[in-house]
Amino acid sequence: MRNFEYYNPTKIIFGKDTIGRLDDLVPRDARVLILYGGSSAEKSGTLDEVRRALADRSIREFGGIEANPTYETMMKAVELVRNSEVDFLLAVGGGSVIDGTKFVAAAVNFEGEPWHILEEHGRNIRGALPFGTVLTLPATGSEMNEVAVITNKAKQAKLDLISSFVFPRFSILDPTKTYTLPLRQVANGVVDAFIHIIEQYLTYPANGMVQDRLAEGLLQTLIEIGAQAINSPDDYDVRANLMWVATSALNGLVGAGVPQDWSTHMIGHELTALYGIDHARTLAIILPANLQIHRESKRGKLLQYGERVWGITSGNEEQRIDQAIAHTRSFFENLGLQTRLSDYNLGVDDIERVIAQLEAHGMTQLGENGDVTLEISRQILQASL
Amino acid sequence: MRNFEYYNPTKIIFGKDTIGRLDDLVPRDARVLILYGGSSAEKSGTLDEVRRALADRSIREFGGIEANPTYETMMKAVELVRNSEVDFLLAVGGGSVIDGTKFVAAAVNFEGEPWHILEEHGRNIRGALPFGTVLTLPATGSEMNEVAVITNKAKQAKLDLISSFVFPRFSILDPTKTYTLPLRQVANGVVDAFIHIIEQYLTYPANGMVQDRLAEGLLQTLIEIGAQAINSPDDYDVRANLMWVATSALNGLVGAGVPQDWSTHMIGHELTALYGIDHARTLAIILPANLQIHRESKRGKLLQYGERVWGITSGNEEQRIDQAIAHTRSFFENLGLQTRLSDYNLGVDDIERVIAQLEAHGMTQLGENGDVTLEISRQILQASL
Repeated sequence: MRNFEYYNPTKIIFGKDTIGRLDDLVPRDARVLILYGGSSAEKSGTLDEVRRALADRSIREFGGIEANPTYETMMKAVELVRNSEVDFLLAVGGGSVIDGTKFVAAAVNFEGEPWHILEEHGRNIRGALPFGTVLTLPATGSEMNEVAVITNKAKQAKLDLISSFVFPRFSILDPTKTYTLPLRQVANGVVDAFIHIIEQYLTYPANGMVQDRLAEGLLQTLIEIGAQAINSPDDYDVRANLMWVATSALNGLVGAGVPQDWSTHMIGHELTALYGIDHARTLAIILPANLQIHRESKRGKLLQYGERVWGITSGNEEQRIDQAIAHTRSFFENLGLQTRLSDYNLGVDDIERVIAQLEAHGMTQLGENGDVTLEISRQILQASL
Repeated sequence: MRNFEYYNPTKIIFGKDTIGRLDDLVPRDARVLILYGGSSAEKSGTLDEVRRALADRSIREFGGIEANPTYETMMKAVELVRNSEVDFLLAVGGGSVIDGTKFVAAAVNFEGEPWHILEEHGRNIRGALPFGTVLTLPATGSEMNEVAVITNKAKQAKLDLISSFVFPRFSILDPTKTYTLPLRQVANGVVDAFIHIIEQYLTYPANGMVQDRLAEGLLQTLIEIGAQAINSPDDYDVRANLMWVATSALNGLVGAGVPQDWSTHMIGHELTALYGIDHARTLAIILPANLQIHRESKRGKLLQYGERVWGITSGNEEQRIDQAIAHTRSFFENLGLQTRLSDYNLGVDDIERVIAQLEAHGMTQLGENGDVTLEISRQILQASL
């Protein structure tokens, strides 16, 4: 096992009827900016519940944060905070709203052009406004981590920031608030969480026994409940477990002390930035091909994954690896996510556009071994056609 | 799944050669009291490393904290802190030293007789001195939680305190510092961690899928490495995984949102207080009998435990439950822990002494269903003979 540090001070409030807890969790004298996305938080009644819980406080609101939140949009929120007396942020939504809120928290008092925060991946952050979250979409894990991803539309770039200053103070996870989500978003969330786990797990054996067992248990749970989450939208226990899996997938425990491979995410980010494909859907395209291209360097873990997660014990090693990859692809497709670039009418010419963007963003040594060069990314994209 | 709150702000520094990090982790101007146990921290060189890392600071030391730390001993540390300028505590040792340090942190500024802290199980704590830990013995999980257990020798009572004020600020976990531990303590640690997990897991099915998979993964890991931890004391990966399992066993994640059964611990505490039997060894006596007595109320989880942890899939339900309990008992015995009261020359008369102590401490409604009355505890003890 590798040396590691683990620190995660976010307080989780999990369960039914927990939004009222905001009145205890947000400081009495706070002047709050509520940030949210589209109309679903309004229609589902979640926003109204939040407003009622904070009725005694000064509240402002900032809506319209898009999926893959943009620098352009979030800078409007930064201006609003700078020009008002706001001193506490509350994100109400999914990963995009929370990521956007993290950026606002870090940018408000940042000296200089806030885009530099993203260019430096958050290393230059010296503080952030305090904020909490009310999660409505289980997927990204942003509600319990220190990571945010922001898209710059003008530059067609999607960059991350990582800083312990942007841990949420608290996150309220009420599974009933997910009942009215569009099923496409739920399916995306299942796949997003699944691939978050895979990227921290499916590298090479590194004797992280706890981490492996946790990863495998989370993957097994997603396989058990993925279809139910689509077919039974108001099954409390299914939605509760989905929510807790997605949070657990990216709160730092799965990847502590083991190698990580975020190449699928990095290639996927470029597909979203260039073509507007949903984040999770880009991952569903890239991952199976990535595993195929790396079947040698990932051999040990692919066999372990096949056996422990999918119960694959028969056949020779090559056959078991093929089965593991095929099961993975089928899992995504059965949830309604296509797994080929050609399903999105993308072809050979588009691969070179993606490669050019990866090059422009310095994504030339990806993967757990740092050997996913542009040429290897090209092979992965070709295998995704 | 039940509603739950999860909060754990302890920073973990895990790995080889990490004690030097103390210089960053302890405030520059802190006046530190180092608390430790017997001579092993000195002999292993760990204490010297700690002293070197903190050489620039004012340091005092308090040694001699016993296994099952006593109120009497820890009050001497409280007096030392009160009569000096100490404002930061550093526990160097295992769960006993850390538990004792938590009590000192809470007691120093407590108004009134500090024993009341334990009588109220920590509910009356309003603050605590900050402290960190350097862990030398993987077992109790105290390095990453808000719980301490203190024994009052005069009253023959062993009581716990639970308070978010006593989370360690940080804990340093260097697996190499466990190489020189007596093997008896290592075996105790494996069993202690195992039973911590069991008591949060083996109750009744409650749809905590993540929690179950995590618990099962931790148990499987202990089964895989338990004997190796004894037979190969300086195998880094074995000791590293043991350390991380023991911490993960009781940092709040396994038990979040699911019923818990601490009856084995409560009965075991009385055996330690009355007869001085090592904590883990009392648990190894009580648990198999407890599972036997509760085979009906725990049926669903006993079958799941047998199948997922021990791979028991053949036989009828009764046979599978018998096998699961027998495997558990054998696991403890193969590590050198006896599992019968009679192995300690305790008999029928002693059972009534234990029952009287449970009654005196209000331990009359134990277990996940609150139905472990004194009569049921008596049956468990009889089945432990």
